[in-house]
Amino acid sequence: MSSSFGQVLKVTTFGESHGRGVGVVIDGYPAGIALQEEDIQVQLDRRRPGQSHLTTDRGEADKVALLSGVEHGKTLGVPITLFVANKDQRPGDYQSLRSVPRPSHADYTYQVKYGTRSSSGGGRASARETIARVAAGAVAEKMIRHLAGIDIVAWVSSVGLLDAPAFDRADISRVDVDCHAVRCPHPETAEAMAGIIMEAKDQGNSLGGMITCVCRNVPAGLGEPVFDKMEALLAHAMLSIPATKGFEIGSGFAGTRMRGSEHNDPFVRKGDHLGTATNNSGGVQGGITNGEPIVFKVAFKPVATIGLEQQTVNFDGNATMLKARGRHDPCVLPRAVPIVEGMTALVLGDMLLQQKMRETVQHAVR
Amino acid sequence: MSSSFGQVLKVTTFGESHGRGVGVVIDGYPAGIALQEEDIQVQLDRRRPGQSHLTTDRGEADKVALLSGVEHGKTLGVPITLFVANKDQRPGDYQSLRSVPRPSHADYTYQVKYGTRSSSGGGRASARETIARVAAGAVAEKMIRHLAGIDIVAWVSSVGLLDAPAFDRADISRVDVDCHAVRCPHPETAEAMAGIIMEAKDQGNSLGGMITCVCRNVPAGLGEPVFDKMEALLAHAMLSIPATKGFEIGSGFAGTRMRGSEHNDPFVRKGDHLGTATNNSGGVQGGITNGEPIVFKVAFKPVATIGLEQQTVNFDGNATMLKARGRHDPCVLPRAVPIVEGMTALVLGDMLLQQKMRETVQHAVR
Amino acid sequence: MSSSFGQVLKVTTFGESHGRGVGVVIDGYPAGIALQEEDIQVQLDRRRPGQSHLTTDRGEADKVALLSGVEHGKTLGVPITLFVANKDQRPGDYQSLRSVPRPSHADYTYQVKYGTRSSSGGGRASARETIARVAAGAVAEKMIRHLAGIDIVAWVSSVGLLDAPAFDRADISRVDVDCHAVRCPHPETAEAMAGIIMEAKDQGNSLGGMITCVCRNVPAGLGEPVFDKMEALLAHAMLSIPATKGFEIGSGFAGTRMRGSEHNDPFVRKGDHLGTATNNSGGVQGGITNGEPIVFKVAFKPVATIGLEQQTVNFDGNATMLKARGRHDPCVLPRAVPIVEGMTALVLGDMLLQQKMRETVQHAVR
Amino acid sequence: MSSSFGQVLKVTTFGESHGRGVGVVIDGYPAGIALQEEDIQVQLDRRRPGQSHLTTDRGEADKVALLSGVEHGKTLGVPITLFVANKDQRPGDYQSLRSVPRPSHADYTYQVKYGTRSSSGGGRASARETIARVAAGAVAEKMIRHLAGIDIVAWVSSVGLLDAPAFDRADISRVDVDCHAVRCPHPETAEAMAGIIMEAKDQGNSLGGMITCVCRNVPAGLGEPVFDKMEALLAHAMLSIPATKGFEIGSGFAGTRMRGSEHNDPFVRKGDHLGTATNNSGGVQGGITNGEPIVFKVAFKPVATIGLEQQTVNFDGNATMLKARGRHDPCVLPRAVPIVEGMTALVLGDMLLQQKMRETVQHAVR
Repeated sequence: MSSSFGQVLKVTTFGESHGRGVGVVIDGYPAGIALQEEDIQVQLDRRRPGQSHLTTDRGEADKVALLSGVEHGKTLGVPITLFVANKDQRPGDYQSLRSVPRPSHADYTYQVKYGTRSSSGGGRASARETIARVAAGAVAEKMIRHLAGIDIVAWVSSVGLLDAPAFDRADISRVDVDCHAVRCPHPETAEAMAGIIMEAKDQGNSLGGMITCVCRNVPAGLGEPVFDKMEALLAHAMLSIPATKGFEIGSGFAGTRMRGSEHNDPFVRKGDHLGTATNNSGGVQGGITNGEPIVFKVAFKPVATIGLEQQTVNFDGNATMLKARGRHDPCVLPRAVPIVEGMTALVLGDMLLQQKMRETVQHAVR
Repeated sequence: MSSSFGQVLKVTTFGESHGRGVGVVIDGYPAGIALQEEDIQVQLDRRRPGQSHLTTDRGEADKVALLSGVEHGKTLGVPITLFVANKDQRPGDYQSLRSVPRPSHADYTYQVKYGTRSSSGGGRASARETIARVAAGAVAEKMIRHLAGIDIVAWVSSVGLLDAPAFDRADISRVDVDCHAVRCPHPETAEAMAGIIMEAKDQGNSLGGMITCVCRNVPAGLGEPVFDKMEALLAHAMLSIPATKGFEIGSGFAGTRMRGSEHNDPFVRKGDHLGTATNNSGGVQGGITNGEPIVFKVAFKPVATIGLEQQTVNFDGNATMLKARGRHDPCVLPRAVPIVEGMTALVLGDMLLQQKMRETVQHAVR
Repeated sequence: MSSSFGQVLKVTTFGESHGRGVGVVIDGYPAGIALQEEDIQVQLDRRRPGQSHLTTDRGEADKVALLSGVEHGKTLGVPITLFVANKDQRPGDYQSLRSVPRPSHADYTYQVKYGTRSSSGGGRASARETIARVAAGAVAEKMIRHLAGIDIVAWVSSVGLLDAPAFDRADISRVDVDCHAVRCPHPETAEAMAGIIMEAKDQGNSLGGMITCVCRNVPAGLGEPVFDKMEALLAHAMLSIPATKGFEIGSGFAGTRMRGSEHNDPFVRKGDHLGTATNNSGGVQGGITNGEPIVFKVAFKPVATIGLEQQTVNFDGNATMLKARGRHDPCVLPRAVPIVEGMTALVLGDMLLQQKMRETVQHAVR
Repeated sequence: MSSSFGQVLKVTTFGESHGRGVGVVIDGYPAGIALQEEDIQVQLDRRRPGQSHLTTDRGEADKVALLSGVEHGKTLGVPITLFVANKDQRPGDYQSLRSVPRPSHADYTYQVKYGTRSSSGGGRASARETIARVAAGAVAEKMIRHLAGIDIVAWVSSVGLLDAPAFDRADISRVDVDCHAVRCPHPETAEAMAGIIMEAKDQGNSLGGMITCVCRNVPAGLGEPVFDKMEALLAHAMLSIPATKGFEIGSGFAGTRMRGSEHNDPFVRKGDHLGTATNNSGGVQGGITNGEPIVFKVAFKPVATIGLEQQTVNFDGNATMLKARGRHDPCVLPRAVPIVEGMTALVLGDMLLQQKMRETVQHAVR
């Protein structure tokens, strides 16, 4: 009952890792916006496997097809459907997993939940499902850029024990981020990150890390109290991405160490509206955007599927050694960047449409 | 459009800080469960102001009234409505705020969003709205305890720079937590925390901190892929609580520093089912509970309303000094414990009902 | 899971017939609209029992209290809660019903569904629940009148075998409708209807009938394809009212007898926009309003609770005679008029807000 | 925002009449149910154009493809996606419609609503969208038959002025219905209906009619008070089908003419449970099924697209004559039968899953 996300801009994803393909239906999208497959493909290409030596070898072109909702290059205001066919399926790689659930993977929990699971790979828990999120996110991005000039950029800010230094976020573009396959815009750190990722790969091991995301030009007033606060929806969106373990906005966990007098963001005049001198709030106050950039961070655990042999038990509870054969990334962070951006765009798009309606009605009422 | 939370067990909260009161409607709750006002009052008493010298002086008894859904002490399967009247309103305290938005508070963003706001205090952004969450959570807790024996305990694990030492979570009960007004079950740390909170209070300043929550006896199989993963819903629920800045589950942000071989939780036989030797997953794998305790942590910023004078600007953009007069807590952590527990119960209740349906149907199909 | 109605303008009702009272939470309502209890009371007074000799003797004043969402006479943009306390409860009247389910009433089905039911009367299936609909509808009406000048008028168009003659709908106001307690704006028919209703009352019997509703000044463009077509939502709303058995829009069932060439509504120029020469469509084409008046009809069965003795069986299946003692209306039609208007306002309000958002966004896109 | 239908069993349809095809995503469907394309194709074949001389000539094979959710012939418990490609598109047929909105069609209202519309045919308002409903309905039917033995049969009970005589509904199967291309199970009436349909076709005119639907073996207890009463959801479902103008259940509009003493359905013992001697309720009391067959009727207007020349105005308001060229049915009734069955199955499936959950939980509580 939960393959849908969003209230007014609502997406529903479908498809299994080793079935015919994966896709998404986007409902509630406005009419009249220019949209073509290329708009979507560019983000899918940043997510697809095999794009660099740092990622899995699974060779998927991940070409998107627009099945509905667009005519003559413009949206019709009806559901937009995107589909990406699976090509390079090797369910055989996964046969040993029939009897042994992979540690920290979804094999065991899916079996318990459904009393069955797809014969190969993780089915809906597979990273392949995130194709649908990236595709839908790219569609949402077109709208929020068009309607409000919103700009979303995410990057890898840590891998394992390596942290990128703090630097001016206002300058970073996706071009900067993509200068290195690691997707950390700080070149020296990126190079070092690539080094430890390759090392982990050689060892059959894996690494985690963090992604930072900044959203610029977000109008003040987005986010729906009480339960759909902007940070609540972003947290929901981020923790729904496979392998995530944490979310923080603005000052985050470190901010709990500060005093109120240090942490508060004093208001200052910025042109014709109010801004804040600092941004510990991360662009959100009381669940509603205040016009400052939204800044948040997402924690990704090290990939569960590793090449090293692991001591575990099979479904019957008998001890066994497991060594994965399926293709996998030693570190998902570089490919997760467009996923974080996509889910962010879905949240902002939904909130923007909801607030547009409120503003119109309030304007009419006055 | 967002005063509701949940899919099958759905709550809708209402009421302003300085109106007649706050309340909640709970829909989707099963028939036949014993429920009385006392079941709810016990958690409201842990949340109410004025319960110790560490909290605000606002003197609210916060007595709950059951307006619908229960007859002869048992639920009827129809909407349950709870209402708590406001008594000690002092909107006069807030009059200076009409022209000056409080830094890091919701005054400014509410004004931008709605073009208006309640005349006093923060309206729906007020901490008083959380009464409805605690009340609904207590109702949900009765059900999940009854149906599955689930046990939820939260406590204050840090205040400012002070961290409670790691200790065995399996033993901690709410009685342990409530031994000290700070709600940290480690007595020496609790005492030290109380000291720095009183110090901050004396200075007109405020402190943040973290709350840890553990859920025991959670059956495997709860959580709805793809978008309603257990951790996604918990993150949504926690970040919807006022003043929260972060959420992490299991190994969380620290887990990003580990390698896959260390981080993976190997399966072991535990009685007649599988368990894991470690719990870096925090009880959730692939978004679905695995039968191990759910463990997560929530970051709370220092309270925005402080007694110290702050340099800021008024709504017109002119520089001014602001000194709050409303009553406020120097540190919300002790009173936030039942709020975290309540929101957790709402998430688990919703997921439990959804999985109960799935299991029944799957059993019938086989 | 279904005490809520609406998507953007969403209402949730609560309360039992013989509990503390009934109420409703309205979420998604805009800020800045003037609203006071009197606005709501006027429609509640048209629904309340005991307003004429044609209705039940249950003496309820049904005074509404605004529990949240309004300050200084204006809405705040947050949930609006309305509550009407029950006063004249006589559960004793219903004690014989514990063992014998009333024919064509909800006693049996509620028992099967929930394994329990409220000790007296029909609980949520009671007509008393419709108070919440009328109250919420009055609130919605203020908005749609304010934003678009929409005008909703319903009246009793048949009782038993007596039909009101066709007459010009464009002229009928609620004042016309209320000229007679029967709420049929055709005076002679109204008088005759009153006669047969009193006759049925004297006999301990009951009558059904039909209500016609017309909505004027509805802007073109309301209604959401595919599943939330205007007529689909109106049908849903009407058939959710207790005792309804049918719904038809425009030409309705009689229209099935016509040929396409007769039934089609040719377009004509009406001022600066298109209208239609006839209105067999009932104001809706393809699920979307076309600017012509929405006209529909609702069928109400004769009241199930009658004073005559009925041969039936008890819950154990043993034959018995049943004679109801609870107070009841011989014909619900006069009091159902504001319920039909209220549910209509909820549907139009929801659709209007959804279309306002679409128009704003489409305007911004171009 | 409304291409979705259902709460727990939720379908989302997509696709335009003259785009790549139409499809549906079904979420909330249980795991472990045998499902293959043939199960769906059989109902699609009853809906497809060109199946007899009574229907449009558009030659679509309407072969369904299962894109997700099924492996090794069994459902996985994840979203099921069905897709039917469009083959025989002739947008050229519709070019004259660019400037002249077809009377009683959706051309005008779509244009007003979206400020645009698909270049040809009715886009989402096209009857082609109903393919997705029939496909999803066939999937839902497998489940409700498997879980509860529910049997749904619909048939044409009137065309124009011709009514089928009343006959015993308990005996009618889909085989009986399909004996004649008109889908009226009364042979002589069917033959006469075919005659007047062919006559209308020859004249370039069209006919309306009614479909009766009966659902047998529906367990007592389905339907969710207050707003999701069984009849409310059925009415919503039926009035969302293109060209429908009315819905009635049980005694319907005729029942408004009866007295309570005649209309009430007395309870009688039927084996080990209660039944009713008559079924004026149409199988539903208080919005909840009572175990008797659900019986309802749906009104379809004569098809709006006719071959006769019509006096109307163009989008600019200038008088013009319109003569349609697109292929169309003279009477949609025969092909609408599986659509009515499909939408009914979606409603019953959703209600059945919701009640299964309630029963399980209530059983556990006791």
